[in-house]
Amino acid sequence: MALITESLVTATDKKIVLLVLDGLGGLPQLPGGPTELEAATTPNLDKLAKEGVQGLLDPIGPGITPGSGPAHLSLFGYDAVEHNVGRGLLSALGGDFPLEDRDVCARGNFCSLDGSGNVTDRRAGRIATELSTPLCEKLEKDAQIEGVEIFVRPEKDHRFLLVIRGEHLSDQLEDTDSQKTGVPPLKCKPLREEAARTAKIVDEFSDKARRVLENEKQANGVLLRGFAKRLPLPTMSDRFGLRAAALADYPMYRGLARLVGMEVLSKDPDLKARFAEVKKSRDGYDFFFVHFKKTDAAGEDGNFEKKVKVIEECDAALPVLLEAKPDVLIVTGDHSTPAMMASHSWHPVPVLIHGNNVRTDDTTAFGETQASHGGLGRMPMMHLLPIALAHAGRLQKFGA
Amino acid sequence: MALITESLVTATDKKIVLLVLDGLGGLPQLPGGPTELEAATTPNLDKLAKEGVQGLLDPIGPGITPGSGPAHLSLFGYDAVEHNVGRGLLSALGGDFPLEDRDVCARGNFCSLDGSGNVTDRRAGRIATELSTPLCEKLEKDAQIEGVEIFVRPEKDHRFLLVIRGEHLSDQLEDTDSQKTGVPPLKCKPLREEAARTAKIVDEFSDKARRVLENEKQANGVLLRGFAKRLPLPTMSDRFGLRAAALADYPMYRGLARLVGMEVLSKDPDLKARFAEVKKSRDGYDFFFVHFKKTDAAGEDGNFEKKVKVIEECDAALPVLLEAKPDVLIVTGDHSTPAMMASHSWHPVPVLIHGNNVRTDDTTAFGETQASHGGLGRMPMMHLLPIALAHAGRLQKFGA
Repeated sequence: MALITESLVTATDKKIVLLVLDGLGGLPQLPGGPTELEAATTPNLDKLAKEGVQGLLDPIGPGITPGSGPAHLSLFGYDAVEHNVGRGLLSALGGDFPLEDRDVCARGNFCSLDGSGNVTDRRAGRIATELSTPLCEKLEKDAQIEGVEIFVRPEKDHRFLLVIRGEHLSDQLEDTDSQKTGVPPLKCKPLREEAARTAKIVDEFSDKARRVLENEKQANGVLLRGFAKRLPLPTMSDRFGLRAAALADYPMYRGLARLVGMEVLSKDPDLKARFAEVKKSRDGYDFFFVHFKKTDAAGEDGNFEKKVKVIEECDAALPVLLEAKPDVLIVTGDHSTPAMMASHSWHPVPVLIHGNNVRTDDTTAFGETQASHGGLGRMPMMHLLPIALAHAGRLQKFGA
Repeated sequence: MALITESLVTATDKKIVLLVLDGLGGLPQLPGGPTELEAATTPNLDKLAKEGVQGLLDPIGPGITPGSGPAHLSLFGYDAVEHNVGRGLLSALGGDFPLEDRDVCARGNFCSLDGSGNVTDRRAGRIATELSTPLCEKLEKDAQIEGVEIFVRPEKDHRFLLVIRGEHLSDQLEDTDSQKTGVPPLKCKPLREEAARTAKIVDEFSDKARRVLENEKQANGVLLRGFAKRLPLPTMSDRFGLRAAALADYPMYRGLARLVGMEVLSKDPDLKARFAEVKKSRDGYDFFFVHFKKTDAAGEDGNFEKKVKVIEECDAALPVLLEAKPDVLIVTGDHSTPAMMASHSWHPVPVLIHGNNVRTDDTTAFGETQASHGGLGRMPMMHLLPIALAHAGRLQKFGA
């Protein structure tokens, strides 16, 4: 199907805006109650839903809980199962690290370990970037391994990028992060024989890091996940003829956007500023991806009220985005992060499409319940982009 | 999935009727307003919907706008991407032209050209068949090309069939119809090197045709599209054990029906007469395809009121079809042709299934909005035929 879509692509001057509220989908606190999105007061989103059409998207497939990487690839019209992108690669791309083909990279977390070496906090109290930056410098200086070159670069808060540069390295490795507390970080397990040497290097790095950090109170250990090498993907320009731009304040999402050939514009942490830049840059691009992280962060923290509040914050900023007069405006999430679960989930994500040639349905407000009987029905997230292209007049007729 | 369906086929005496209102799916004139189907007064269709089950069908895939050829193949249970049928082939089949394997055929339009050779009307004012027939005879006589044999046969109105007969011809050619006015017809572009000679022959024909037609006021040029050679398809009898019959007044749809092995019964332009023939022929067939073109024509003309009116015309005739007592009655379109867009579109098509063992839903009238929360949900159009077979008791259990 993807190949047909690509063969039908044509150009128009219609602009598509994809606004992603990360982890938007939620769950009610009590059966029958409102989800975070439904509890939020969102007059602007509700108006768009009423004038547009709603539905539900499965990021990867029914029952599958996605990470942010594959979920965003689906949003961008890619088969995320075919193109399985490691978290480490996203971190590298987001941080503008000049990755080489031979490099293996991973997402690192500073974590807190107790006296017996068990993890007490997987995020080291979410230490601030100002505190984690000198720790990264220290690691890059003092935790080098013979035979390879080690790079440790800060990301936001407790997160960092690890890059191992050398010959004959493999990314076929399991995470050292068990996602649990009360147990020590895992030994790195090779998934294939050829990765045995790289796994040893990873373990050596983890041990050295612990020695380097031993006097730290909070951040005295490291957890590594998403080992990956560089992955060549066809760009959105190649596939869909779109000059695409990204406006995201978190490095990983910028990295993801670059991976599919988007140009990264504003990374202003203020959502309104990013919205304003869409208007400013309107003529230069066909497709704008605007990312809003706070919904996912509140969901991950299990904070229902906070998630409601940041959805309302996004809604209040929307008029600035509407000033850009997108011909096709899509609002959705990359996946669900219900505060009740304090984690990503498999529940399908509500989506609304507003604009050119939309067939309206009888829904009146943006939310999971109404979306479940909206005019779009429920479909794989990967199909969203072809629909966006259709509304923008960017797909020719198939056959006669 | 298709192979499984085929392996489960069994025979019953249950009759399936598929009534296709071409281009049925529509759009509201204003957001939230009724579509053409919803605006129409359709007591008979509404009763069927209330007693039956509704849903939405994607002819090819979300976002893909289909031509009539692939859309009908999907309705008949074929993978239209795998079997991509050129328009020329449909014209040839519809016109009963005795096509040979070496022939290349195309759909032709008489068009109007101005003094500089630019297209002013892609359909030459939709000139009547009585006027286009002698022009076709003239072309077949005076626009022959050395080394091949040229056939030009009238279809309905401004449309004709071009057949080029000769050795080593290729159908890997782009249309000469740019679908635009204000520009000249395109040169024929070969899609592969092997088609270069055929492309030259096509251009030579177009030039000759222009000279032959130079004294015509309206129809002084030709546009060619959908170059194709004969395509062997398994029949509906082979695949689904169905003795299938078609009742269609437009040649292309009869051609399509023949392509999948249907027998063509009535081509009476009166819908009631075609409906009456279903009753008359009930015993001889298992599956009846009844085609109604006027909905698509009104949509293509951008005439919302007209499309409403012809839907009402179809509804008023329905009791005649019901006299045939179909065990399974399906009413749907092959694709959407919203009057607001005056063209085919990608929007999913409403469908209703009435009859044997239907699980009713809570919809009360036939229309896109109710269909979007009907019991069938939204699904690929290709899945409709297996469901029809199931309701007719024509599919055995899979596995034990």
